[in-house]
Amino acid sequence: MATDLSLIDGALRSWRSSMDRAGKLFRSFTDDELHTEIAPGKNRLIYIWGHLAATNDSMIPLLDFGDRLFPELDTIFLTHPDHAVQHEIKASAMAEMWQRLDELLSAEFTKLSPSGWLEPHQAVSPEDFKNEPHRNRFAILLGRTTHLAHHYGQARLAKR
Amino acid sequence: MATDLSLIDGALRSWRSSMDRAGKLFRSFTDDELHTEIAPGKNRLIYIWGHLAATNDSMIPLLDFGDRLFPELDTIFLTHPDHAVQHEIKASAMAEMWQRLDELLSAEFTKLSPSGWLEPHQAVSPEDFKNEPHRNRFAILLGRTTHLAHHYGQARLAKR
Repeated sequence: MATDLSLIDGALRSWRSSMDRAGKLFRSFTDDELHTEIAPGKNRLIYIWGHLAATNDSMIPLLDFGDRLFPELDTIFLTHPDHAVQHEIKASAMAEMWQRLDELLSAEFTKLSPSGWLEPHQAVSPEDFKNEPHRNRFAILLGRTTHLAHHYGQARLAKR
Repeated sequence: MATDLSLIDGALRSWRSSMDRAGKLFRSFTDDELHTEIAPGKNRLIYIWGHLAATNDSMIPLLDFGDRLFPELDTIFLTHPDHAVQHEIKASAMAEMWQRLDELLSAEFTKLSPSGWLEPHQAVSPEDFKNEPHRNRFAILLGRTTHLAHHYGQARLAKR
């Protein structure tokens, strides 16, 4: 395998492993458990799961993969803190959204060439990208992988 | 910049950002605060910090960078759970170890060529590496970056 392909393969394996771990953990909770806080006064599990799903959904336009699947998640899980917006999203519905986002992102990831990974993401202007070429798609992949790990680590605390 | 160098640059930026964030957070706690649990019944902050320092120290031989600086951290922070091994390590001493490990690893990282990043790490046998060439140094860098994020996310819960 060429050097650049091997490096991308490594990053995709890291994403895969983080997604699998998070999906497995969140799917293991009941609806009741999802509504408990990870620690006193902290976010509920359902909020963290929704927050990660909304973040994955927002990657679709950011990486120029098309239109978002579930933009309605933002108000509940991204732009407002936990408890601020009432919702009735069940574990089964969240699991299905999670799965669909995973499939869409994974399918798009495999289509990108090494130079495609180094293209600017959609939140950086052409002028800024000239001076900051590291603000590319690959940076989004790596950043979202650590973001997953960050919140997985928190949610893991709720597992007995 | 060549494609492979840009991809490695992205991964090193992700490591840098995770290290900076963790270092800044842990250095912000007093000795007393470091001895509080991140949540009831969970690890203390000092344990998480030491665990991350021990993990960084173990990267030195794993990436073939030489001998470990602080192998004595393992018994306290890696092979035993929190509270199992008594120690008197102060915040100032931990901060100094953290800094020395950061400098050593960063200096070694910059010396590696793209093909060097794809060489096997020291915990995989030549036979296994033939079938699993993804078990390379780059995978260790990415894996340790998500490991940092995982525990940073937990420690962050203790910050008011």
